[in-house]
Amino acid sequence: MLKPMAIALVHYPVLDRRGDIVTSAVTNLDIHDLARLATTYNVSRFYLVTPAEEQQLLTSRIINHWQQGFGASYNPDRRQALDVLQIKNQLEDAVADWRDLNSGAGVAVLTGARHQNALGFSEARQLAAEQPVMLVFGTGHGLAPVLYMPERPCLEPIKSGGYNHLSVRTAAAIILDRLIGEDTVVSELNHSV
Amino acid sequence: MLKPMAIALVHYPVLDRRGDIVTSAVTNLDIHDLARLATTYNVSRFYLVTPAEEQQLLTSRIINHWQQGFGASYNPDRRQALDVLQIKNQLEDAVADWRDLNSGAGVAVLTGARHQNALGFSEARQLAAEQPVMLVFGTGHGLAPVLYMPERPCLEPIKSGGYNHLSVRTAAAIILDRLIGEDTVVSELNHSV
Repeated sequence: MLKPMAIALVHYPVLDRRGDIVTSAVTNLDIHDLARLATTYNVSRFYLVTPAEEQQLLTSRIINHWQQGFGASYNPDRRQALDVLQIKNQLEDAVADWRDLNSGAGVAVLTGARHQNALGFSEARQLAAEQPVMLVFGTGHGLAPVLYMPERPCLEPIKSGGYNHLSVRTAAAIILDRLIGEDTVVSELNHSV
Repeated sequence: MLKPMAIALVHYPVLDRRGDIVTSAVTNLDIHDLARLATTYNVSRFYLVTPAEEQQLLTSRIINHWQQGFGASYNPDRRQALDVLQIKNQLEDAVADWRDLNSGAGVAVLTGARHQNALGFSEARQLAAEQPVMLVFGTGHGLAPVLYMPERPCLEPIKSGGYNHLSVRTAAAIILDRLIGEDTVVSELNHSV
């Protein structure tokens, strides 16, 4: 039995292919793929993190289309999946909201290619049984170094060697399945929402 | 140690949301996500199955862009990933090619929501250790019933109950990780390619 879980998809600050810090564009498919993934694995929140106002508006329009617009009756599965989605300006806001929802508990676990001092998957599963974990995914070429902090442990990479260039969609799928699988995630947050 | 493996992404015959048989459109993101996934897990072939000539041309143009065009130098990771991709008219052609490459051995395992007589994941892993398995994924709302045949076992669904509406990209990621994980897939095909 795992504590409530969340995911966050960060669009700023992330790296581009040259290693510069950029704001990446919100992708329609990322929203749907991760929302459906979150709902399938009983994840309570999917925080979409971007400070760009026009990107927030775009995201709201996509959500609105599937929740109240034509899409709601056309495809109810998508409507249900998007219930978990919330837009936040920055990762700090997502972390604060997640901790609020869990009466002050909650830890952000960063995903990416970092090896040093990384949590193994079994350690991360253990952590998720003890605390409400928010898994943080970066778009573009990954989370900017400034997001790495002592209070935010990193998860080990999916593959220990060789070619390892998965999309954020497929990486998130593999990580949620490894951490949760057929286990039960507590869906009721301590704090009423 | 697993035998060589392949994946096939079928665009015809598949079901639409009403259950009618359709040809789905090839999606650029599917190509890249699955090619990178295949390369990460050492899968030898990614068969893109569509009988639609204009869709085959579109796919060839995408491959060409990343393998010989501007994309080849812009993003070598994508070039490497697309080495595994081959276009086939129908699933039978993909199966025939896969068996040719493996000196007549090889079995197609269908993925989807079918429960009856489905292989469990541990049985499927066992099969992949004994025979060159080709995992078959459907686009749209899944593989058409006509593709289900006695000689093509089905894999059990990813989740045993509840909401289960994953995209084909995320489902393929989870299935490859469950079957292969950190295991070694034989990358050298028996037959020279």
